[in-house]
Amino acid sequence: MIPAEAFFLTPGFNGTLQQEIQQMVAEGILRGRFRAGEKLPSSRRLARHLGVSRITVTLAYTELVSSDYLAARGRSGYYVSDTAPQPTLYPADEAPRRDGVDWDRWTGRRFSRHPVATKPQDWHSYPYPFIYGQADAALFDHQNWRQCALRALGRRDFEVLTDDFYERDDPMLIEYIVRNILPRRGIAARPEEVLLTMGAQNALWIAAEVLAGPGERVAIENPCYAGLRAILGQLGAEIHAVEVDEEGLPPAALPDGVRAVFTTASHHCPTNATMPVERRAALLARAADEDFIVVEDDYEFEMSFLKPAAPALKSLDREGRVVYVGSFSKSLFPGLRLGYLVASEGFIREARALRAAMLRHPPGHIQRTVAYFLSLGHYDALINRLNQAYKRRRTVMDDAIRAEGLEIAGQGAFGGSSFWMRAPEGVDTDRLAADLRGQGVLIEPGRVFFAPGAGPSNHYRLAYSSIAQTRIPEGIALIAAALRRAGPNAPR
Amino acid sequence: MIPAEAFFLTPGFNGTLQQEIQQMVAEGILRGRFRAGEKLPSSRRLARHLGVSRITVTLAYTELVSSDYLAARGRSGYYVSDTAPQPTLYPADEAPRRDGVDWDRWTGRRFSRHPVATKPQDWHSYPYPFIYGQADAALFDHQNWRQCALRALGRRDFEVLTDDFYERDDPMLIEYIVRNILPRRGIAARPEEVLLTMGAQNALWIAAEVLAGPGERVAIENPCYAGLRAILGQLGAEIHAVEVDEEGLPPAALPDGVRAVFTTASHHCPTNATMPVERRAALLARAADEDFIVVEDDYEFEMSFLKPAAPALKSLDREGRVVYVGSFSKSLFPGLRLGYLVASEGFIREARALRAAMLRHPPGHIQRTVAYFLSLGHYDALINRLNQAYKRRRTVMDDAIRAEGLEIAGQGAFGGSSFWMRAPEGVDTDRLAADLRGQGVLIEPGRVFFAPGAGPSNHYRLAYSSIAQTRIPEGIALIAAALRRAGPNAPR
Repeated sequence: MIPAEAFFLTPGFNGTLQQEIQQMVAEGILRGRFRAGEKLPSSRRLARHLGVSRITVTLAYTELVSSDYLAARGRSGYYVSDTAPQPTLYPADEAPRRDGVDWDRWTGRRFSRHPVATKPQDWHSYPYPFIYGQADAALFDHQNWRQCALRALGRRDFEVLTDDFYERDDPMLIEYIVRNILPRRGIAARPEEVLLTMGAQNALWIAAEVLAGPGERVAIENPCYAGLRAILGQLGAEIHAVEVDEEGLPPAALPDGVRAVFTTASHHCPTNATMPVERRAALLARAADEDFIVVEDDYEFEMSFLKPAAPALKSLDREGRVVYVGSFSKSLFPGLRLGYLVASEGFIREARALRAAMLRHPPGHIQRTVAYFLSLGHYDALINRLNQAYKRRRTVMDDAIRAEGLEIAGQGAFGGSSFWMRAPEGVDTDRLAADLRGQGVLIEPGRVFFAPGAGPSNHYRLAYSSIAQTRIPEGIALIAAALRRAGPNAPR
Repeated sequence: MIPAEAFFLTPGFNGTLQQEIQQMVAEGILRGRFRAGEKLPSSRRLARHLGVSRITVTLAYTELVSSDYLAARGRSGYYVSDTAPQPTLYPADEAPRRDGVDWDRWTGRRFSRHPVATKPQDWHSYPYPFIYGQADAALFDHQNWRQCALRALGRRDFEVLTDDFYERDDPMLIEYIVRNILPRRGIAARPEEVLLTMGAQNALWIAAEVLAGPGERVAIENPCYAGLRAILGQLGAEIHAVEVDEEGLPPAALPDGVRAVFTTASHHCPTNATMPVERRAALLARAADEDFIVVEDDYEFEMSFLKPAAPALKSLDREGRVVYVGSFSKSLFPGLRLGYLVASEGFIREARALRAAMLRHPPGHIQRTVAYFLSLGHYDALINRLNQAYKRRRTVMDDAIRAEGLEIAGQGAFGGSSFWMRAPEGVDTDRLAADLRGQGVLIEPGRVFFAPGAGPSNHYRLAYSSIAQTRIPEGIALIAAALRRAGPNAPR
């Protein structure tokens, strides 16, 4: 007879009371504390002991019977089933262990020494989160997402989605991307020219790995997305960072002998500059002359609410020299980890083989959920809603920034979701960000975007994709006040 | 006025009629065929035209109103909304394109030239699928999986799970692995010694990338999981394949100067041999003497229904020299893509930085769904059910194989899910598999497990994880008949 006193509710348990009771019983059996044939407390006793309703205990017991942890014996109550899962927990050896391996020497810290930007995990709890690239739960279409996920969890899809796809993708999602998303960017592609990835980060990683090896020369923009610099640094490529101007990357400034050029042509990260069509043509002409490949990270094209986005660089590509990177992280949410590569079949063949060896494929359920969300029109409705909200927020940002006399260094002509800002000379925005964080304001210091050791330290990025519109003016005012405190050259 | 005739139902559409109607309307708007202010056909007319009930059309229209594709104007009907998503489809350039890049030269086919085993995509439709590593939908606990997924889709989790975790994992899942799964393998680990991966494939890939570079010497077993050989081949490592015997990998046969040794000690893939404890001790002693690392792929420990699985090699590791690879692909399903690495903190730090640059993290929703499924006891109940089914199937396999006089080359002492088989000398199992496929029987030819060009061609693997018990005798009889046809030395 197992006493009711063997059970305790844990404060803050994430789930229902019924789930908690099920979990306690299952864990007791798996840890060998409750053995086959032992009688559970009656539902009445356990309910009284825990202070819950009797039906809750009964429902938990019934569930445990159906999963064969418990057996019901007529009126005499519930027992641990004879065929319940065996307790298979070995006594863990808790003796402290001496590490016999010098991991720093062993690995050369080849991966961990490349810095990437991260956000504080608890950014939701800050009142003024001017952070970039996280989903605003208030704008997301949670209900329809849930519906689509449920549909993809149905028996009809289940058999297909639980399989190992090996190198394949969900044809339904590929079809939608080819027929409905790429045409908006002016890109005509066949299904075999598209490969799904674990977000844009994974797409950039695969492109880098296929196109360049250790010691080979690649060009990136300066400033540049820090995640790309980490990829190329880990790969051991010879990185040339080319200064951008208000028209983005100048093709004439590229060094000779590069294998690949990485660009955010439509919407430079982080300055928001758009590369004009003449530069695009010049870049592609130079790529053809010198036989290099252009990787286009088109990371935010959906956020074009001021005017239609310019077609992608890839749309001008007549030679198959552009490898295009797209993502659902900005339009859906980043925790989804879903993006795609569009390129010539010869490139995709290698990328597909690399992805298969590295991770096989993005989970089937996620691919199918997105396919449903897109094809039912929820994706476009969501983007429409995001754009309306971002447009309003941007106006409020603009007004507040001007009212406080802050300096904008770059803002997207089409829209986007952030401003690239310049603090007065001498202000260190790493310190500024730390100061503001104490006041509930999150900004992104600019240093991580620049080539190490070479960049200015007075830039920062302010995004409006996660901050509520009503908070913007006060947040900007707090930034202006912090800047006034930060130096004598600050705006008054 | 948009005519009802503009709409056609597609035979085989995967979804409800209501969803299909929504999709047709949304797509027409996004493609620019239906414009703002245009009137939709009345629900009565469209219902008659499509041959569906009127309420179905009304429900679809109502949904489209709520997502702002349509607007309802009192009694006069439904119109394309003025604020509907813009048609943003550029006219696609369909001109055939000449590829200006020689991709074979460019990439050296560095990734695609390494063969991996795949299964036919339509294996479900074969009556005798003796294939390995796919989930049997008939045994899976679909209902509770769906419940857990739904819970993870709830608003409470949603905010957390939509975020970009960067290098982090779901602490709830890590906690369960550390407290409940690793102790079954005799492994005591702290949360910072565990990293989630996209399945065991991704775990092996990360381990290989962290531990060895191009030209560095690594040892693998021969025969060996083909996916591992592909990883190391793509990496450009110097691969030494060491012949296994009935006790698995012999440590004395390892070459000098290796950086890392990859082993399936508890359950050799594909022969099912278990390495005895003396060999394990010898392997670890040699690793300490020569400063190499052992990567242990413990890919199927849950399937131990004949006796309890031996503790993992990692449980004997006193120096932090073993990198342990676990997976939920066999116990849940492979399309999930979830596995984990357990190793010293110094290793995990590098693995984490590599994973962050490569793909960030496995999708949050999947991590949390698995955490719920495990902690509510469904995982153990499922394994219990799988083991009962596998135990029965194995007995039937055993009987049928003996009745037909086929030769077993290896079968797991603990259980497992497959037999390693030897056909008579001179039989080419690639050809045998092709022959059998025509009769609805899927077997796995053994050649892909051996070092290229060096292995015998008369082995094959028969798994019983996906085939219904009642089909086994007939399937084995078909294999025996095909072997009799295949050569004069075949069993009579």
